[in-house]
Amino acid sequence: MIFRKKGPPPIKRFSLKRRSQKSGLPPGTPVLIGDSDARPVHISVITYTSTEIEEKSITDPAESSDWRQKPGITWINVDGIHDLSILEKIGASFDLHPLVREDIVNTDQRPKIEDYETYLYIVIRMLHFDEKQDRVLSEQLSLVLGEGFVLTFQENREDELNTIRERIRQARGRVRNMPADYLAYAIMDSVVDHYFNILEKIGERIETIEEELMGEPETGILRKIHQLKHEMILLRKSIWPLREVVNVLQRNESERMHESTLLYLRDLYDHTIQIIDTIETYRDVLSGMLDVYLSTNSNRLNSVMKVLTMIATIFIPLTFLVGVYGMNFKYMPELDSHWGYPAVWFANIATAGTMLYYFYKKKWF
Amino acid sequence: MIFRKKGPPPIKRFSLKRRSQKSGLPPGTPVLIGDSDARPVHISVITYTSTEIEEKSITDPAESSDWRQKPGITWINVDGIHDLSILEKIGASFDLHPLVREDIVNTDQRPKIEDYETYLYIVIRMLHFDEKQDRVLSEQLSLVLGEGFVLTFQENREDELNTIRERIRQARGRVRNMPADYLAYAIMDSVVDHYFNILEKIGERIETIEEELMGEPETGILRKIHQLKHEMILLRKSIWPLREVVNVLQRNESERMHESTLLYLRDLYDHTIQIIDTIETYRDVLSGMLDVYLSTNSNRLNSVMKVLTMIATIFIPLTFLVGVYGMNFKYMPELDSHWGYPAVWFANIATAGTMLYYFYKKKWF
Amino acid sequence: MIFRKKGPPPIKRFSLKRRSQKSGLPPGTPVLIGDSDARPVHISVITYTSTEIEEKSITDPAESSDWRQKPGITWINVDGIHDLSILEKIGASFDLHPLVREDIVNTDQRPKIEDYETYLYIVIRMLHFDEKQDRVLSEQLSLVLGEGFVLTFQENREDELNTIRERIRQARGRVRNMPADYLAYAIMDSVVDHYFNILEKIGERIETIEEELMGEPETGILRKIHQLKHEMILLRKSIWPLREVVNVLQRNESERMHESTLLYLRDLYDHTIQIIDTIETYRDVLSGMLDVYLSTNSNRLNSVMKVLTMIATIFIPLTFLVGVYGMNFKYMPELDSHWGYPAVWFANIATAGTMLYYFYKKKWF
Amino acid sequence: MIFRKKGPPPIKRFSLKRRSQKSGLPPGTPVLIGDSDARPVHISVITYTSTEIEEKSITDPAESSDWRQKPGITWINVDGIHDLSILEKIGASFDLHPLVREDIVNTDQRPKIEDYETYLYIVIRMLHFDEKQDRVLSEQLSLVLGEGFVLTFQENREDELNTIRERIRQARGRVRNMPADYLAYAIMDSVVDHYFNILEKIGERIETIEEELMGEPETGILRKIHQLKHEMILLRKSIWPLREVVNVLQRNESERMHESTLLYLRDLYDHTIQIIDTIETYRDVLSGMLDVYLSTNSNRLNSVMKVLTMIATIFIPLTFLVGVYGMNFKYMPELDSHWGYPAVWFANIATAGTMLYYFYKKKWF
Amino acid sequence: MIFRKKGPPPIKRFSLKRRSQKSGLPPGTPVLIGDSDARPVHISVITYTSTEIEEKSITDPAESSDWRQKPGITWINVDGIHDLSILEKIGASFDLHPLVREDIVNTDQRPKIEDYETYLYIVIRMLHFDEKQDRVLSEQLSLVLGEGFVLTFQENREDELNTIRERIRQARGRVRNMPADYLAYAIMDSVVDHYFNILEKIGERIETIEEELMGEPETGILRKIHQLKHEMILLRKSIWPLREVVNVLQRNESERMHESTLLYLRDLYDHTIQIIDTIETYRDVLSGMLDVYLSTNSNRLNSVMKVLTMIATIFIPLTFLVGVYGMNFKYMPELDSHWGYPAVWFANIATAGTMLYYFYKKKWF
Repeated sequence: MIFRKKGPPPIKRFSLKRRSQKSGLPPGTPVLIGDSDARPVHISVITYTSTEIEEKSITDPAESSDWRQKPGITWINVDGIHDLSILEKIGASFDLHPLVREDIVNTDQRPKIEDYETYLYIVIRMLHFDEKQDRVLSEQLSLVLGEGFVLTFQENREDELNTIRERIRQARGRVRNMPADYLAYAIMDSVVDHYFNILEKIGERIETIEEELMGEPETGILRKIHQLKHEMILLRKSIWPLREVVNVLQRNESERMHESTLLYLRDLYDHTIQIIDTIETYRDVLSGMLDVYLSTNSNRLNSVMKVLTMIATIFIPLTFLVGVYGMNFKYMPELDSHWGYPAVWFANIATAGTMLYYFYKKKWF
Repeated sequence: MIFRKKGPPPIKRFSLKRRSQKSGLPPGTPVLIGDSDARPVHISVITYTSTEIEEKSITDPAESSDWRQKPGITWINVDGIHDLSILEKIGASFDLHPLVREDIVNTDQRPKIEDYETYLYIVIRMLHFDEKQDRVLSEQLSLVLGEGFVLTFQENREDELNTIRERIRQARGRVRNMPADYLAYAIMDSVVDHYFNILEKIGERIETIEEELMGEPETGILRKIHQLKHEMILLRKSIWPLREVVNVLQRNESERMHESTLLYLRDLYDHTIQIIDTIETYRDVLSGMLDVYLSTNSNRLNSVMKVLTMIATIFIPLTFLVGVYGMNFKYMPELDSHWGYPAVWFANIATAGTMLYYFYKKKWF
Repeated sequence: MIFRKKGPPPIKRFSLKRRSQKSGLPPGTPVLIGDSDARPVHISVITYTSTEIEEKSITDPAESSDWRQKPGITWINVDGIHDLSILEKIGASFDLHPLVREDIVNTDQRPKIEDYETYLYIVIRMLHFDEKQDRVLSEQLSLVLGEGFVLTFQENREDELNTIRERIRQARGRVRNMPADYLAYAIMDSVVDHYFNILEKIGERIETIEEELMGEPETGILRKIHQLKHEMILLRKSIWPLREVVNVLQRNESERMHESTLLYLRDLYDHTIQIIDTIETYRDVLSGMLDVYLSTNSNRLNSVMKVLTMIATIFIPLTFLVGVYGMNFKYMPELDSHWGYPAVWFANIATAGTMLYYFYKKKWF
Repeated sequence: MIFRKKGPPPIKRFSLKRRSQKSGLPPGTPVLIGDSDARPVHISVITYTSTEIEEKSITDPAESSDWRQKPGITWINVDGIHDLSILEKIGASFDLHPLVREDIVNTDQRPKIEDYETYLYIVIRMLHFDEKQDRVLSEQLSLVLGEGFVLTFQENREDELNTIRERIRQARGRVRNMPADYLAYAIMDSVVDHYFNILEKIGERIETIEEELMGEPETGILRKIHQLKHEMILLRKSIWPLREVVNVLQRNESERMHESTLLYLRDLYDHTIQIIDTIETYRDVLSGMLDVYLSTNSNRLNSVMKVLTMIATIFIPLTFLVGVYGMNFKYMPELDSHWGYPAVWFANIATAGTMLYYFYKKKWF
Repeated sequence: MIFRKKGPPPIKRFSLKRRSQKSGLPPGTPVLIGDSDARPVHISVITYTSTEIEEKSITDPAESSDWRQKPGITWINVDGIHDLSILEKIGASFDLHPLVREDIVNTDQRPKIEDYETYLYIVIRMLHFDEKQDRVLSEQLSLVLGEGFVLTFQENREDELNTIRERIRQARGRVRNMPADYLAYAIMDSVVDHYFNILEKIGERIETIEEELMGEPETGILRKIHQLKHEMILLRKSIWPLREVVNVLQRNESERMHESTLLYLRDLYDHTIQIIDTIETYRDVLSGMLDVYLSTNSNRLNSVMKVLTMIATIFIPLTFLVGVYGMNFKYMPELDSHWGYPAVWFANIATAGTMLYYFYKKKWF
């Protein structure tokens, strides 16, 4: 049901399709696994020190090479990865390993971190909640953290990173006074903070369903619960490996991370754990709700069937009785009796009464 | 169904709502994630040595700075965290890291421990059982343990900590002769001891349901069992991480903890394990009860349906038979026979008898 | 359903009740969590070397202090822990830590081991099977192993330990020639050996149920299976942590354990694993039996319902047909036909036959 | 249903019975836990070097002591462990620890390995498949590996070991040129190879059931699937611990194992893993088949019930209608109408047709 | 249903059959466990340096020995392993351990890696998707990586390896300039890349089923879902151990692997993890779909039964009523009343209306 990649061209949900085009090619050949389209690629470059800031929007990545020489921290963000030539140029000017270039365009990866000595390569998933369809959309964010620079690659222009840009511009928070790894942290933190939004919206859906369950739930509720469970499976798949990524960063094994950033990573790690915890709890809660619905529903149906069956059961013997006196035998002495008719009514009422009493005593209704 | 935060303003159960207001802000910006209201903030300060004790209730946290200089151990308890200015002042006078200040007001965290070299920051959850609604209410207790001082922050004024205050006043137990880490231990122990109360009450609910199950359970019992299972999911989420917190404390990795307190922490660890064990056992027991109810219920229904269906099945052929002789054909020889009517009765009784005998032999009832 | 503490006063099954009386008291305050009653406390003291043995039954624990000076190994067994003053005296003369004294009277603990440098404190559960009610009863055995002495505390006088006493008296086995840790091992081994008895009895119950299942199981069997499953949950809770206890002992981390005893501990560890294994297997077997019962039962019911419904289905159209010719219209040409009546019979038989043939071909019965 | 010990006297399946006779005895007292009977004990002794071989069948174990002095490798195999005196003599002449002697006769143990410095004691389970009853029979093989000798103890004479004897006689494979640990390996390998036979036969059963499931499964299939699942539970219990045994051997922690044998142990370890893997896969496959059967069955039943209920539902209103005109009211104008009778038939057919059309459109059949 | 070995002769699915022929033979005896047939064995030999390349197709493996002396890297691929003599000759000329030769012909092994000091032996599974039957076919690829040579053994000629051959011929990618371990990596990478194809096709199946589920699913869908679940069980069994294989290679424990290849292995490891992740997600999704189908189906059936039962329930009392006035008693005053007949109709309509109203208010339809 769920988890489309975000972006203009609708794509298949369980799409490993394009990945399979790659099979047979030598490793390290970048092949676009994602949506290729005509949208222009946006490259935004920000260079800042604690005192100065320079911002530019370029289209020719060749310009980016000279930015690297400048003092301070350079953040290059690439929106749209479908233009492989642009990627190649950036990759060349920052000495990115062919496997990294391949991974950037291969947009259905799980979160991971790889240490290439002079830089770290981090993949995380940006998630968005499509409120109309109650679906979570997923997009890959590739992040390269090197000495004095951060590169980010995403499929579409996202708003999450704008708030960080704004903080850099206005010198809010610590970001201007910290090294490049803090910027990388700030980007990841902003993505993870957004997960809380999604969980919150799913939490609201769960509450709505719960209230419905208390009343008279409709049949459609079943599908809703199943869909949310499905979302949880996919959400978990996207977020679970992130825990290990942050853990590796936090263990300070790379010289890219400075001591001063570690405290913040610990905080990020806590948030990740809290999100995973919440996902697990939601799954348990949804399973419980499913059980409640199914057994409530089954109970309701059973009590309906029981009442209906009892009505039928009471009248069937009575119908037999009146059928008897509908027979046309010549010699049926009861027919001539004056009390025959009232006696049949009496018999009917007595039979029905006895049965009702019996059912009542057996607590069948 | 469950697990509201405690306190006057009713809040949403799965609330990550306010957390999401934060997304986009620089890390370390304290934003109140919890209930903001007009209740005044209570700050109580206790300073004690083995011989002396001084107690004060203040409203201006600026006064707290001079308490720090005094000899002995200082315990500052803040009830109500919605006044961010108060928090900022306390944070500044004790050099609390911005991330800690952020965490204190962010009241939906899982239990955790963080070592900030000069102090330890511990988050645990205080739980209360709302007997009217069979719900567990949860509240965050933040605890800062430094050299010679303990700070505690809670959303509402709680009674649990009063017993410790009383012990300090009356110099009962060891608390007056031990360092600050023992006070921190005593506070955590008191919170964990309270968990036993909650489990006991839930245990009583389980026993009541079990006794009902032995008799003639009503339909509502299903919802009760599911609700208790739901409580268990949320209880487990609140308590499970506590085990790791106590374990970290106990491994004596921080210099904040003295050798003399470790034995007590081992005891606390045992209690935590015992509580988690009990929660798991309750979950298993509740699942078993659910199975018992569902299969008992299904068996009951089936035997009811079987009896009703048999009654119908016996009378339907008989009704057919009497219907035959209710037909108005001119030439029906049986109708004129003197023995026709008794013969039909005999046939009816014989048919019903045969069927009953067959059902009986097949053990259908 | 299950797992009462053994002993005269019947107590609640999920009892954490008394534990909660304790909340708010300073740690290390012994509060009786268990049954307090008027039965006298029995203290039996055995002192032995490889050549000599002295046995005494005392009531005043003050006497016990001088036993400690004697050469050889002293084993003091206390039956009944409800007299706190006795416990305090023994605790004082053997320098037991307040937390140990608290744990001894707190009789609903999980198995654990704690190293207090001069002695080890071990908690294990003695289990008994109440054959009348198919319940497992549980009792706490506290064991203190020090240099040359072993203390045991139990709620009621148990027979398990008598066989060890007998072995000491008659100098059977190795116990008289081994250090005190061997005595502690022997006590634990005797308790664990008794678990096999319980599993054996439960195994018999399972076999009985299995044979019943092969035949014509009654409805009550469901409750029996669920009860045994329930027992298994509680049994597992009592025995699982024991594995870790024996493992810690076996790893020889404490200087209380001598090299010569380690081989025996390995044996004890094997037994514990075997018991846990058996419990797990029983749980799986019971779950399988439950599935067999439920699906067999459901199959039986379905085939019953199918037959009954078919009988009804065949006669309902026939009843309609004869009803047609029971109508009193003036102009019904069939009624006057000489062959009308036989024709209706033929139609009835043909219809019923066709339906039966159809049902038979569709394999509906 | 399953897992009897193999051998003449039928024994209980969940038998921990005899083990419980032991409780109360000092550890290391050999008590026969298994079948005691009058069959004679067979002791076969093979001594071989790379060039010579000597084979003897003895009845008095006293003779075995002098074999130990001879050069080369001695393999003593004892079939039947019910004669405790024989066991005692062998135990004495090879200095077996009392706990080992106890374990040899205690034949319901899980696979394990114990290092007694001068020898290794290994327990594995020999399994056989009783094709008549689809049951797995289990027998304990105790193996003692010392410097230059291997002792094996089994309950009954088994064929598995004959192939090894044959290889020794004919000097096939490497066994004559390798140390005693290779012989021990060869024995274990031969037992594990036999597991593949059992899994193969169970695999055939599964395929047969699967083919049945594709067609028209009978009710008995349910019991068959459950029985195979049951077998899997018990098989897994017997084989799972073997993995750890081989792993310990392979880690070369004992000086009994030579470098040259390690490669072979790695191979044995692979086989064990493969067997465990297959057992797990079979369990999953069987669970899936159970689900397929249950839901197919439930679907079949439902479609049957639906058709039957529809037939009844169509005729019941019709029967009502003809009942109306069977009433004997004096003033029923329709009865006198010439078109009354055809009109009723028309009404009947129209009603039935409408209902059928409605059911058809609703896709009820 | 699934997972046949690929190749001309159809073989049993759960086939451990031939493996059992081996039992009793000394370890290291190569016995063909797989399909033996008359197809000729193809041996292709490629020798290359960064500048030169020589390719040959031979039939006599004796020729292969002199290839080993040449400089550069030699890759010998053997298609068809049923000719044991060929295998023996190759094994001899490359000094393969007897256990390796045995493993090569034993084609139902799980993925594994073994270090024989002078060479590494790796087993992986090549998988293919049989689109007609929705089955995954599995074939074993044995790979021997030595100093300057790579041997591969497969049951049938596969296309996957051709793309690598092509790359070598055309000197595409890095393969010509890297040592032999890179070639081994390239072969494994090519096999793993093919897994994505299979997962993609299964993903398409899942989507198709999902769309069907949204509409009006047929009964056959149940079998389809179960079959895909079954595939997942077997797929997981084939791929799960591969993770450990790649992990061992990546940890660089063998001197066969060069530093330069490790980065690529890390990439391969990521792919393996991603595949396992996807398999797990598919399993969860399929389970969810099964639940949706079953509960939707059950809901549909229930609503059908409810409507049908209600129709029957309404008419049964009415039929009784008209039956009453079909009785032939002489003294039935209503029959003579002029309003009797209309009154009965009124009673009928009133009764039916009341019942419908009651059902409607109770929300029974």
